[in-house]
Amino acid sequence: MNIVIIGAAGMVGRKLTSALVASGTLAGKQIDGLTLVDVIEPEMPRAPELNITTRAIDIADPSVAETLIAERPDVIFHLAAIVSGEAELDFEKGYAINLDGTRYLFEAIRQAGKSEPYCPRFVFTSSIAVFGAPFPDKIGDEFFQTPRTSYGTQKAIGELLLADYSRRGFLDGVGIRLPTICIRPGKPNKAASGFFSSILREPLVGLEAVLPVSEDARHWHASPRAAVGFLIHAAEMDTTVLGARRSLNMPGLSATVGEQIEALRRVAGDKAVALIRREPDAMTAEMVEGWAKDFDASRALALGFRAEASFDEIIAIHIKDELGGELLK
Amino acid sequence: MNIVIIGAAGMVGRKLTSALVASGTLAGKQIDGLTLVDVIEPEMPRAPELNITTRAIDIADPSVAETLIAERPDVIFHLAAIVSGEAELDFEKGYAINLDGTRYLFEAIRQAGKSEPYCPRFVFTSSIAVFGAPFPDKIGDEFFQTPRTSYGTQKAIGELLLADYSRRGFLDGVGIRLPTICIRPGKPNKAASGFFSSILREPLVGLEAVLPVSEDARHWHASPRAAVGFLIHAAEMDTTVLGARRSLNMPGLSATVGEQIEALRRVAGDKAVALIRREPDAMTAEMVEGWAKDFDASRALALGFRAEASFDEIIAIHIKDELGGELLK
Repeated sequence: MNIVIIGAAGMVGRKLTSALVASGTLAGKQIDGLTLVDVIEPEMPRAPELNITTRAIDIADPSVAETLIAERPDVIFHLAAIVSGEAELDFEKGYAINLDGTRYLFEAIRQAGKSEPYCPRFVFTSSIAVFGAPFPDKIGDEFFQTPRTSYGTQKAIGELLLADYSRRGFLDGVGIRLPTICIRPGKPNKAASGFFSSILREPLVGLEAVLPVSEDARHWHASPRAAVGFLIHAAEMDTTVLGARRSLNMPGLSATVGEQIEALRRVAGDKAVALIRREPDAMTAEMVEGWAKDFDASRALALGFRAEASFDEIIAIHIKDELGGELLK
Repeated sequence: MNIVIIGAAGMVGRKLTSALVASGTLAGKQIDGLTLVDVIEPEMPRAPELNITTRAIDIADPSVAETLIAERPDVIFHLAAIVSGEAELDFEKGYAINLDGTRYLFEAIRQAGKSEPYCPRFVFTSSIAVFGAPFPDKIGDEFFQTPRTSYGTQKAIGELLLADYSRRGFLDGVGIRLPTICIRPGKPNKAASGFFSSILREPLVGLEAVLPVSEDARHWHASPRAAVGFLIHAAEMDTTVLGARRSLNMPGLSATVGEQIEALRRVAGDKAVALIRREPDAMTAEMVEGWAKDFDASRALALGFRAEASFDEIIAIHIKDELGGELLK
């Protein structure tokens, strides 16, 4: 079993790499080779028993995809993307990487299948940004895709191509629409959604965090650990049950900021909660208002995808995976 | 007012050209120039008072779009496409024309807007092929796009790009998802949907026609005259009411083959109906079973798009527009 992870240097890519290295198997088969690529060279994991290659590449370069596919990997995880904010600021870069880069990969696979049969599992990370307001209270599995960002447009197009290339038998695609990942480890970043993580992450280690929206703002979350679980399940699942509909809303947890804060209070007390500073920001509040708040992810649940059921659980995962298992007192 | 029609040599393109030439105006403005392009040079209409240009071009050629946009037309009708059957047989050709050709047009418009502001009305003909079975009884305005053909995939991608380029202010797009056009004039063609037209068109002039499906097969229809009406309304309408959702299911008539035949009987008698020869074909029946049967096109109706209410009306339009106004006895 040979695996390629495109976008391996990102937060989810690194966690997926660790999980694969730790297990040594995927879909019940021994992992023989693992190729980790990203626009910056991914870190080489310590795993002498595995044949691991790391490469710095730019998927917007039309000649790169062929080299990634040359060794005919069995499973390709495609996590690489220009994120929402940057794709909005740099129209051409977003399309070059998120649309053209993805299409080059699909095309390289199709071309590789011309000489001898080849149909790898292709796990495509899509996003709930394929949906655009106004929404129903819960977005169902048959709600239409009307993205309100170029990033969401590029992801929705990737999903359509994934489905058509799968239907044609060129590849065996699964698209997973990730919830917002919470608690995202590391430093605060500039993503407009960053506060959902930072209002928990920072107070858990005694630092202040800024809350730019009201406590009744509702959003759709899953932990980094759940995201890795989605990816692995998408690589291992029986895809014959998907039919022509290859992209799925992942399960998650719909919660208000107020519910996040109450979970923080239960785990870390009033002192932690007191570190959240209210700094209402109208622009952020308006953006958040336009994002999906809740899903009925019945189809993914029936297919075996699992997420957390409470923010207590999401915080506990963060403490276990990122803080060495316990809070400093 | 300068207009470009891409795909002007096709059946709908020719009827749109005739309608524009006859009216001499669009959106209340005098038509000054009309450029008719297609992969074969469109016929020059007799209209000495209009400045009409005809050109044979291939929109899959990346250098062509810029020349079409060079004179900064006010309205662009994009009707050109590799049809469903051919896009399925020739994967590369379908993507080259239906996806890349369309994207080159959008990009040429965006580039033209860099030197001085430019935001033309862009009317994009999409298709109900963006939907894939299983369907609800009536497909509503928020049903998701899961095409089951490469053609439908390419049209759905065109819609997403149209919406994103519109949102960004590069163009002012309206996508219209046409029903099956019935009665399509001319000779029987090889489209699997061709029998919906030929079982009426041929008997109306005393010729035999073949019916490959059962009489309870249901489908979604509009006349060629309605299609031209949709295009002109899409060019003239106020688009501020569309918001981010730029593509619309056009209204139409949901009817069974049996209802078509009864309308034929009312208009042309038992003798005409007797010319329909039943030749059941399992493959055609299965394809038709996978097509959309009925829509709730509330949004387009509210926005002023209009189609026929009965097959009697559709047949009457064919007799008026194609057969000189009356049936030969």
